[in-house]
Amino acid sequence: MMKRVGIDALSIKDFYLPLDSNAETVKGVGEKFSAAGIRIYAAGVIYMKTQAEVDRAFDYAKMLGVDLIVGVPNPELLAYTEQKVKTYNIRVAVHNHGPGDLYPTPVEVYEHIKGLDPRIGLCVDIGHTARAGGDPVKMVRDYAPRVLDVHLKDLSVITKEEHAIDLGTGVLDIVGLLKSLIHNRYIGYCSIEHELDMNDPLPGIAESAGYFRGVVKALG
Amino acid sequence: MMKRVGIDALSIKDFYLPLDSNAETVKGVGEKFSAAGIRIYAAGVIYMKTQAEVDRAFDYAKMLGVDLIVGVPNPELLAYTEQKVKTYNIRVAVHNHGPGDLYPTPVEVYEHIKGLDPRIGLCVDIGHTARAGGDPVKMVRDYAPRVLDVHLKDLSVITKEEHAIDLGTGVLDIVGLLKSLIHNRYIGYCSIEHELDMNDPLPGIAESAGYFRGVVKALG
Repeated sequence: MMKRVGIDALSIKDFYLPLDSNAETVKGVGEKFSAAGIRIYAAGVIYMKTQAEVDRAFDYAKMLGVDLIVGVPNPELLAYTEQKVKTYNIRVAVHNHGPGDLYPTPVEVYEHIKGLDPRIGLCVDIGHTARAGGDPVKMVRDYAPRVLDVHLKDLSVITKEEHAIDLGTGVLDIVGLLKSLIHNRYIGYCSIEHELDMNDPLPGIAESAGYFRGVVKALG
Repeated sequence: MMKRVGIDALSIKDFYLPLDSNAETVKGVGEKFSAAGIRIYAAGVIYMKTQAEVDRAFDYAKMLGVDLIVGVPNPELLAYTEQKVKTYNIRVAVHNHGPGDLYPTPVEVYEHIKGLDPRIGLCVDIGHTARAGGDPVKMVRDYAPRVLDVHLKDLSVITKEEHAIDLGTGVLDIVGLLKSLIHNRYIGYCSIEHELDMNDPLPGIAESAGYFRGVVKALG
């Protein structure tokens, strides 16, 4: 499916490669993607509620050969996470998950990480941010140097309970967001988080990919 | 498939509704689309090599209730076609089909129709235009008031023999084209002509639709 829509990178989730996999399994999965011409650019989203889970996440990322963890370390583990970042030279993009989460929006993430090593930054999830009343366009501008990853999706309407739909079919300001990312010289990935029609996801992924490319192309 | 990608209008081809269908069949097919929330905005592409074929095309369009024929009347039939346009008040967008065609690009169409009733205009096919060495962006600007329909597609490279691929995956200047159409206040449709992976066309159609909407949205 990724090949068909011309997407050649992904952030791998534990659903596809469990966090407790042994080195051989991790290596095998990594090689499969590599052989298919797909770059695993990040591991995550990985929740980290204990030091052991932080350790495991970094070992997993290291085995995979990725230099970015999209993760959710509990706030009290951020100092420990920073030590690991320094030791492994693997970056951590802290993901916001909307109402009820430890980090509803990038604002709460930024307040916790602003004093830490700059390799700890944000994964701005625009859907969860909007659900929590935040403005993703403003946030990718305000926190530009610390934005390490972006999760793209759309919402039919902005309510707390809303689920992700295909890009361009909802109300989120995708154009404003991409304009801001380009303006701020964002060099990371934009991941399409597809959660619709999961028994036949390809058409929706294709529509989102097309929309993203159309906007980016038109913005020059 | 159209509903899934949010496309609610089409130009019907004889493949779906033969030109020699009786009134009952035409009415039935028209009602099926209507019941599904889809507007048949044009009939075509219809080739017309004789007066009888011109007559048949207009009767077909009238039965369908469309006010636009995307057609290819032989040049010697254009005067007769103009009479029919006046009688039926049905417009004709003359389609260009690239190298070897009666009308390789909109230039040849325009030279033949410029003195005729303005309800005879162009269906600019950007792929066939490019294959014949023409610049679709320039042509939708130069012939703006006479552009009645647009066929969108992309090409991997520009050669005479090239086949259509999904929008945004090739080299045609879709952004420039849509910018020009918007600038010239084009009010017709842009039809996605999908000719790839015909055993499973939905993902490609979805990608093209997404790309089109992304560009249009970004252009404001």
